[in-house]
Amino acid sequence: MHESPRNPRRFLEDFAIGETFVSASARVTAPEIMAFARSFDPQIFHLDEQAAHDGFFGELVASGWHTGAITMRLFVESGFLREIGIVGLGVDELRWTAPVRPGDELHVRCEIIEVRHRPHRPDRGVLRVRVETINQNGLTVMTQIPNLVVPAKPDRNPV
Amino acid sequence: MHESPRNPRRFLEDFAIGETFVSASARVTAPEIMAFARSFDPQIFHLDEQAAHDGFFGELVASGWHTGAITMRLFVESGFLREIGIVGLGVDELRWTAPVRPGDELHVRCEIIEVRHRPHRPDRGVLRVRVETINQNGLTVMTQIPNLVVPAKPDRNPV
Repeated sequence: MHESPRNPRRFLEDFAIGETFVSASARVTAPEIMAFARSFDPQIFHLDEQAAHDGFFGELVASGWHTGAITMRLFVESGFLREIGIVGLGVDELRWTAPVRPGDELHVRCEIIEVRHRPHRPDRGVLRVRVETINQNGLTVMTQIPNLVVPAKPDRNPV
Repeated sequence: MHESPRNPRRFLEDFAIGETFVSASARVTAPEIMAFARSFDPQIFHLDEQAAHDGFFGELVASGWHTGAITMRLFVESGFLREIGIVGLGVDELRWTAPVRPGDELHVRCEIIEVRHRPHRPDRGVLRVRVETINQNGLTVMTQIPNLVVPAKPDRNPV
């Protein structure tokens, strides 16, 4: 989609604001939700379908960090930045906007919103991407703006 | 630490800016780093100790989402907000400030930085907490500011 076969490697200068891409989708199951919770977020509303009725959400929902991890996998598997890797300095404005329930099918939509050159570090810059995680009903369940490290073109970076 | 036996349940009004607490610690192993990566962040520098030498970091490091998930577990297990659960609206200023390597021992330090009442929603408010994930050398590897939903005192919330 975003790569031509003759030029598989992209640099900071090759990305444009407004460029978008969409990932494949992944189904989230109750066993996966509970397994993630046992390892990383052992709270009643992530651990047990029956007990979750008495919890904050009134039903079993995925940990927000699970949704974030699934989003990362979809982002990596999309092939975006495949050659250099997806290396994040951090994330701004991470928001969990709707619950993720067993059986939900999530995909990720990304849009480049800023290409930031850094004068003090000419060999690499930062790509800011608006990432939305969306369920099978078109409802956005998570949004975030990761700041990704991307190498600049070597010819701008004499050794 | 933060709860008295006679008053185990805390409400928004019971929290004070500047209140801090520290979690237990957790050791991160190479098999855990690689297992998380296979499920959620399949990139060379998280997947294989040998191959990682050629990757961005030059060594095996944990996925940032893995560090976030470990942080969540330490936060949950600390007992903070045990009665109501840790329910996040989102996270501001998530930053990965140093790599997490096999054998690292992480703990979490939290400080309440804002107690936000919401006039349009008197039954609950938002607690903003500065969360630092720190390794065995005292080096901060991740920082974030989660926004947590916390119930307000019921007597301020007539039905």
